[in-house]
Amino acid sequence: MPPPTVPRPATALAWETLLPLGDGPAPLRDRLERAIRDAVQTGVLPAGSALPPSRLLAETLGVSRWVVTETYGQLVAEGFLEAAVGSGTRVPAHAPQVPDAASTARTHTPLRGEYRRPAFDLGPGIPDLRHAPRARWAAAVRHALDTLPDAELMVVDPHGHPLARTAVADYLTRSRRAVASPGDVVVTHGATDGMAAIVAGLRASGHRSILVEDPGWGRLREVAASAGLTPVPVPVDDRGIDVERLVAASDRTGARAALITPAHQFPLGAALSSGRREAIVRWARDVDGVLIEDDYDAEFRYDRRPIAALQGLAPERVALVGSLSKSMAQAFGLGWAVIPEGLRSRVPLADRARPSVLDQVALAGFIGSGDLERHLRAARTRFKRRRGALLAAFERELPDLPLTGIAAGMHAMLELPEGVASRDVRHAASALDVAVSDLARYRATAGRPGALDALVIGYGNLSDALVDEAVARLAAAIRSVPARRGA
Amino acid sequence: MPPPTVPRPATALAWETLLPLGDGPAPLRDRLERAIRDAVQTGVLPAGSALPPSRLLAETLGVSRWVVTETYGQLVAEGFLEAAVGSGTRVPAHAPQVPDAASTARTHTPLRGEYRRPAFDLGPGIPDLRHAPRARWAAAVRHALDTLPDAELMVVDPHGHPLARTAVADYLTRSRRAVASPGDVVVTHGATDGMAAIVAGLRASGHRSILVEDPGWGRLREVAASAGLTPVPVPVDDRGIDVERLVAASDRTGARAALITPAHQFPLGAALSSGRREAIVRWARDVDGVLIEDDYDAEFRYDRRPIAALQGLAPERVALVGSLSKSMAQAFGLGWAVIPEGLRSRVPLADRARPSVLDQVALAGFIGSGDLERHLRAARTRFKRRRGALLAAFERELPDLPLTGIAAGMHAMLELPEGVASRDVRHAASALDVAVSDLARYRATAGRPGALDALVIGYGNLSDALVDEAVARLAAAIRSVPARRGA
Repeated sequence: MPPPTVPRPATALAWETLLPLGDGPAPLRDRLERAIRDAVQTGVLPAGSALPPSRLLAETLGVSRWVVTETYGQLVAEGFLEAAVGSGTRVPAHAPQVPDAASTARTHTPLRGEYRRPAFDLGPGIPDLRHAPRARWAAAVRHALDTLPDAELMVVDPHGHPLARTAVADYLTRSRRAVASPGDVVVTHGATDGMAAIVAGLRASGHRSILVEDPGWGRLREVAASAGLTPVPVPVDDRGIDVERLVAASDRTGARAALITPAHQFPLGAALSSGRREAIVRWARDVDGVLIEDDYDAEFRYDRRPIAALQGLAPERVALVGSLSKSMAQAFGLGWAVIPEGLRSRVPLADRARPSVLDQVALAGFIGSGDLERHLRAARTRFKRRRGALLAAFERELPDLPLTGIAAGMHAMLELPEGVASRDVRHAASALDVAVSDLARYRATAGRPGALDALVIGYGNLSDALVDEAVARLAAAIRSVPARRGA
Repeated sequence: MPPPTVPRPATALAWETLLPLGDGPAPLRDRLERAIRDAVQTGVLPAGSALPPSRLLAETLGVSRWVVTETYGQLVAEGFLEAAVGSGTRVPAHAPQVPDAASTARTHTPLRGEYRRPAFDLGPGIPDLRHAPRARWAAAVRHALDTLPDAELMVVDPHGHPLARTAVADYLTRSRRAVASPGDVVVTHGATDGMAAIVAGLRASGHRSILVEDPGWGRLREVAASAGLTPVPVPVDDRGIDVERLVAASDRTGARAALITPAHQFPLGAALSSGRREAIVRWARDVDGVLIEDDYDAEFRYDRRPIAALQGLAPERVALVGSLSKSMAQAFGLGWAVIPEGLRSRVPLADRARPSVLDQVALAGFIGSGDLERHLRAARTRFKRRRGALLAAFERELPDLPLTGIAAGMHAMLELPEGVASRDVRHAASALDVAVSDLARYRATAGRPGALDALVIGYGNLSDALVDEAVARLAAAIRSVPARRGA
């Protein structure tokens, strides 16, 4: 910066200090603008302050007068400074006063690396994150970007892109025995998003309550509740939801909708018995009701072929929600809902944000190429092997504790010794870097005294190499908790 | 298929016909299952029909008995068939009757290729789809997939991923002169999604109405209305929204929120004057109000540097919404909202679906690498050149009609000859494969007699090679419409 060539007024040094230009690569104009903004926002130039005439400031800072007039002009145009005939340029009376916002608030945002999962991950509902199909997904996105016509870059269909709806309908028909045409499918961000759309539709159709499995996945209950549907808990046993009690609860409350996991009850693990499958459909028809089938991990079954979706039995009564979240990962942000025609018009789809068209077309390609089903087959093989290792480890470490609900999915239930509280075990396990969940967490109603206390043990994201050590640590945690009488 | 080895009963031929196995590559068990499902769902086997004993069907179809018992077993487990002791296997009384759903409904879904834009695309609000940064975006997604830690595949923060929030805050601070830290940013699907979140927060804070520019972008008005805020129109002139009349409307209705486009009014094209910038912020402070700044195309300015976001003047009063939709394309499905701290806690973020974590991390990389700003610079250069060609073409073809609001953005306003109705011109242009919009479409209130009738002419997605031809066709359309006295 050349030294000023004229004598400086008394304030000259001050202006150089108040408006430091720095030296980085940015044009002088930008640096001056930044300096003025900073001085105003930090209160160095308080509301009402006069700025020096442009000629004076130019000389003081050693820049051309054009730089100053341009900068003043821009800031005046934006209302950041004001210029009045005869009184020069000044900071408006109501200048922004934002004490150091950028530097303080930034430190409060969690940064990458703060998210972690425990080394011994027995958390339920978590897929095998090590084997998320990253490369195949990148290829699917690339393919979508390579092939999507220009005109489709500006189209957003609230039901989803036709390619995605067609691919999902084909997949569900083929793999889940659903009865779904593309027109029945809505592309969503996941089961929760699909559920939110459906319960909004139910609310708009006059529903005020919804029957839910107890225990069951709490997040979907919450979504129903925040849409204005009161959840009505119905007990579950080893044949799935108790349909007799469901019918009684429906009679009692007038509830005509039910949220169920017929293929693999979460978390108890039963498949809904064939008699109950029929009975629940009969109930739905009798009361002009709607069943919402949370089809969350039915692809993973180890004793027989996957149980078909209930939706195929009564497509006019059953809405189905599914996603990639439990088979790939939540980060893909994709799922689907199949919504019966009678309900679809009541679902406020236009007001809901949908996954990006690019993601949807990537999904279509990922399904169409067979990549999804290849991924699911490989995952099933891995889970089956891991499940075998897990069963052997439990047999060795905790031979007396019943392990149930392990014929399918990625989790099992472990009953605890009498008087040993699952909460205490969870905490002891956590201290050993073992994540595990418990049944109490999924109950819709507080457990009665004497109710089953059990752990819910997921193995989706458990490293194969750590199965034995994880079970040994969990066993140590259980043994470390003293049994409490009447606890 | 080997021939059956025992004499056939009378119905034998019928069962072969009723349950055609086909021959594809699928296992026999799957083919039989499919055949039975199809027969039931199409009504070939009506509710209550008995199926033949497994031994008989096996012999009839020439398959092993195991195939039949397995298939019956699976379908009974799913409730698709029922088995009662002593009465064999049958179709339940309430069998699904879905007459040909898959084949009929599929044809109603629009298929790829039905979406098109006119060859001469003068639609406003549409970016240059030919130059969407497809390859750079694919690289950003690939990079996100290559680098995202496993644990983050299962994390969804309702405000957005910290990497994306940080990148957006940096971008807005640097390019839009916003005052935003990552904690102030919410990652959205776009401006509409951000607006929906903000108006839900306003509604929850007790707001019942919102002042809107008239004319203005209708979609955001609709979003406010469907959240329960009554839009209160305020006129716009060549210095942006009329703040005196806004204050009067606020006094009259109690509205304390306003939706504005200060950098480049849509569709009239003015920048909000510096006096009005100050005045509207003063109003917001006086009434404890909120300004929502729709910052939709401010990056593209041809007469000076982009006008800074109003949000930087009063970050505690101004919420800003922006997106990639008008600079890249809607298909990317990404945007942002900066929400003042006082309002943020009232915005029901947990209930709203966010863009996938993968997309958000891709956005962070796309901004962090400088790709977004490189894309914007290249787009500005292209638009500036195209705008020059457009001005020249209008000067040549329609020298008498005023073209205004063209100092920024990707659209301009063309006043029509007296008595020539814009609606007629739109229709005539459409017949020449020219898309164009008109002012009436964006009015919140019906135009008074004698109100300005004008076309809104976008050039974002107009092919450079077609500028002259597009303007020539538009001029022909205008000339083809007879002026109507008193129309």
